Amino acid sequence: MTGRFPQGAASAYQYPLLIKQLWHTPLEQASDQVVVYRDTARYTYRELHGRVCRLASGLADLGVSAGDTVGILDWDSNRFLEAYFAVPMMGAVLQTVNVRLPPESVAYTIDHGRASVLLVNDDFVPLLESIRHKLPNVRTFVVMSDRNMPAPGGLPFADEYEHLLAASAPYYDFPDFDENTVATTFYTSGTTGLPKGVYFTHRQLVLHTLAQMAFSGVAAKQGRLSRDDVYMPITPMFHSHAWGFPWTATLAGLKQVYPGRYEPAHLLKLIKDEGVTFTHGVPTILQMLLEAARATGTNLTGLKMAVGGSELPRALAEQALAMGVDVYSGYGLSESAPLLTSVQVKSASLSEDHEKQAELRTKAGIAAPLVDLRIVGAGMEDVAHDGQTPGEIVVRAPWLTPGYVDNVEASEQLWEGGYLHSGDIGVMEPDGTLRVVDRIKDVIKSGGEWISSLQIEDAISECDGVSEVAVIGVDDPKWGERPMAIVVRKHDNDAAKMESDIKTRLNALAAAGKIPRFGVPDRIAFVDKLPRTSVGKFDKKLLKATFGR
Amino acid sequence: MTGRFPQGAASAYQYPLLIKQLWHTPLEQASDQVVVYRDTARYTYRELHGRVCRLASGLADLGVSAGDTVGILDWDSNRFLEAYFAVPMMGAVLQTVNVRLPPESVAYTIDHGRASVLLVNDDFVPLLESIRHKLPNVRTFVVMSDRNMPAPGGLPFADEYEHLLAASAPYYDFPDFDENTVATTFYTSGTTGLPKGVYFTHRQLVLHTLAQMAFSGVAAKQGRLSRDDVYMPITPMFHSHAWGFPWTATLAGLKQVYPGRYEPAHLLKLIKDEGVTFTHGVPTILQMLLEAARATGTNLTGLKMAVGGSELPRALAEQALAMGVDVYSGYGLSESAPLLTSVQVKSASLSEDHEKQAELRTKAGIAAPLVDLRIVGAGMEDVAHDGQTPGEIVVRAPWLTPGYVDNVEASEQLWEGGYLHSGDIGVMEPDGTLRVVDRIKDVIKSGGEWISSLQIEDAISECDGVSEVAVIGVDDPKWGERPMAIVVRKHDNDAAKMESDIKTRLNALAAAGKIPRFGVPDRIAFVDKLPRTSVGKFDKKLLKATFGR
Repeated sequence: MTGRFPQGAASAYQYPLLIKQLWHTPLEQASDQVVVYRDTARYTYRELHGRVCRLASGLADLGVSAGDTVGILDWDSNRFLEAYFAVPMMGAVLQTVNVRLPPESVAYTIDHGRASVLLVNDDFVPLLESIRHKLPNVRTFVVMSDRNMPAPGGLPFADEYEHLLAASAPYYDFPDFDENTVATTFYTSGTTGLPKGVYFTHRQLVLHTLAQMAFSGVAAKQGRLSRDDVYMPITPMFHSHAWGFPWTATLAGLKQVYPGRYEPAHLLKLIKDEGVTFTHGVPTILQMLLEAARATGTNLTGLKMAVGGSELPRALAEQALAMGVDVYSGYGLSESAPLLTSVQVKSASLSEDHEKQAELRTKAGIAAPLVDLRIVGAGMEDVAHDGQTPGEIVVRAPWLTPGYVDNVEASEQLWEGGYLHSGDIGVMEPDGTLRVVDRIKDVIKSGGEWISSLQIEDAISECDGVSEVAVIGVDDPKWGERPMAIVVRKHDNDAAKMESDIKTRLNALAAAGKIPRFGVPDRIAFVDKLPRTSVGKFDKKLLKATFGR
Repeated sequence: MTGRFPQGAASAYQYPLLIKQLWHTPLEQASDQVVVYRDTARYTYRELHGRVCRLASGLADLGVSAGDTVGILDWDSNRFLEAYFAVPMMGAVLQTVNVRLPPESVAYTIDHGRASVLLVNDDFVPLLESIRHKLPNVRTFVVMSDRNMPAPGGLPFADEYEHLLAASAPYYDFPDFDENTVATTFYTSGTTGLPKGVYFTHRQLVLHTLAQMAFSGVAAKQGRLSRDDVYMPITPMFHSHAWGFPWTATLAGLKQVYPGRYEPAHLLKLIKDEGVTFTHGVPTILQMLLEAARATGTNLTGLKMAVGGSELPRALAEQALAMGVDVYSGYGLSESAPLLTSVQVKSASLSEDHEKQAELRTKAGIAAPLVDLRIVGAGMEDVAHDGQTPGEIVVRAPWLTPGYVDNVEASEQLWEGGYLHSGDIGVMEPDGTLRVVDRIKDVIKSGGEWISSLQIEDAISECDGVSEVAVIGVDDPKWGERPMAIVVRKHDNDAAKMESDIKTRLNALAAAGKIPRFGVPDRIAFVDKLPRTSVGKFDKKLLKATFGR
């Protein structure tokens, strides 16, 4: 701005996008709204904000200052939500520790993230005891517990969370600072190598929150979040900020329910007792919920569920719809905070039958506002948006991780060519709907063709008696790779007959041009259970090691 | 960010909030959606974006470059919308000229805004001819017209708009630049002194758009905008960016209808023919619409209308509700781009009768996300949020004008104490609902009490036979000021009887504690018509000059 555009009062107009600014409206407009933790605690927004202040005061008393990293190991709780606000609002970095990783990896991520203070649910005391010697940077532990008496084990806890809050000042003067200050970090396991840390700034998280509210708010009838909703996450808060919804729900002033550790029966009870209308999770969680609802005769009508993390199988979507769940897919990455796309079924299509709806709802959906999402070939050229031509999904948006913590090389690779590389293969339909067809590394290259493992999984999952299926590429001297299916059966059907039925069906689909000619697996193996990664995806690395060579 | 937080690919993650970024998703997802101009033109989003590129190419050919100011004088049109995008996206400043100001003031604002190029609807050729000699900075005129042959008068037009577009390249490589670059400017007449120019940056307008979509999207049932809506402005695009909705509607991919000059019968026809469901305007426009609908027997059910600019009288709101219009108030300023607050009736209150609903819907509403809105006393201290204690409304938000163009003193006053001063008096209810009780300068100070002229106007407007009423303070040697009412009658009722009826009713309200004891006007004058300012508010300055002393 030049001299003719003066700025009053020493640039007071400059409004930094800081997480603390999310509180202005809910504190005024929803001060009596509640945040529920299991059947343990129930706080108004006014009380919760007071607890956020107390947590900051307490952490400051424990020596936390701007730039420090505070780690948290907890199930989904109001405490986690309090940390989502208090730690970044102090100018410190919140590290949300993935407690489902192997202990070695948990130790690696805490040490690599340089957490100096850890807030620890006492369920994880045994884990921490076993890795304590690998955490030289951690100087302070605070224990949190749902028990009357926390179980501190042999750890030198400086304080107990509720005691710390009770003893600390209920006011904290959260400072203004540069909106580009790092607010959060967490580690993504990927499928190879060491976990990598992504990180996000205040500006990015405020923009993610605003864009998520705009995107899910403006949806016509389907795929929307509104002030009438009651929110509960079933995506861990340690992973991708529970998809950012806790901040969005707070900004919208919604009633929020935090379920602690996920137990299907308990989740169902909370949904019914607290009137939960909006949740999100991976397909496995949806399947568990549906099974528990069937077993208990629970009616799920009125529940909306966004599904992501891995592909939502059509058959599962149909089951969910049949049970009254307004289910739909979204797509994002740890690296993207994670919002990129989500399904919003057009109002005119809501009268379609469940089969057609399942087709629409299992796509990746449309991009959120401001997301510059491209499908590109190897030279970063745009491919046709014809619903058929595959390419890598690359993106720019105001909330993507600038890089990986302390890893310059991976950061450069991630952003090669000025766009963030998802590593996923997608096609774009003419109406702007994205379909993710595979992970680059899961694409099976056979006889010069690209075969999408997800597409073959989809086809097999619709065969009778199939409960779950993973398709991998196995080395083949002639074709390079050949697809192989690993199947979990619903009932103890005859394996030879199922194999023959599956191949018959797939050959018919190939003949009809619905799947690639080379897509019919040569081998089908039957197992009792498919291995999964810590975030619930099929562990294809392990499957390849087992079956692939 | 420190060294351990590396940024891939030379900070490619940095995503500047530029107006061009609003196009990513609508162009992909709504490319066949239409923008309609009267019965004259109909463009798809794809075509409209092409026209935005052509306009930028054409303006570049005419010598426009970054930092230049391009003025536009037009009724609401697709051309105006094209300029909303093309001019700022080039890095130039769009000046939206208020054509309803007196010619002297129009000349002053164009000159003061330093517009060097003017896009001119030929309806305004006579106006421009009369002030041409006062516009030394304007070097290029482009004529726009709804006629087959534009009427250029004696102005040296360089080109005609459609010809310019047809002759220009359909591609334009809109550059990245600093998001704090000024994008728009327009002048606000105020009630005293010369018009003052406000201005807004790209970052501010993108955040305004995102926040408006988030705020109106997340509303439960009432007060919301969704992808199912069809949008038409009835607030001039030259004033406060038509409240920012054209950008929001574009980002949401909505069908948009631009009505040209406002003629009630034509507006109604567009609403019915094009299926308009969402509009906004000042109370006077709503009144005109209702009258025209009554006269023609038009059914307005399904139309949502946000009303702002001046207070929405309860009686008018009730009439609108009775005619099926989902009417509600909002509050903002030219200085605030303008979004600050808007009514969102809670779903539980939607079953209330029209009288109760009108009460709820005529408040200023709740603050939009990120708006830090305070009610303060003379020393900037917060007053109680008890729904009774008045104070000045001061705000911070990410989209407030940094100051007034070329006016350091007024800029400093505007931002005194680090908050933008609205000049309005409000009370905050305990649930976070704002009521605007008056303009600071319209408050009547009588016998040591503050009397809200708006509150007295409200009470009088509910008396039988009152069409419109303005209340002003007139000098009084004993009390300082005393309220006086100036009334327009609906029918030619007996003035003496009406005056007596009004006073009887107001005395009863005062006795019941509903209005201040000193609030009953001593004098009531009856006039045929109340004078209005260029933006449709009562011209109280003129009324005071006429009746006040």
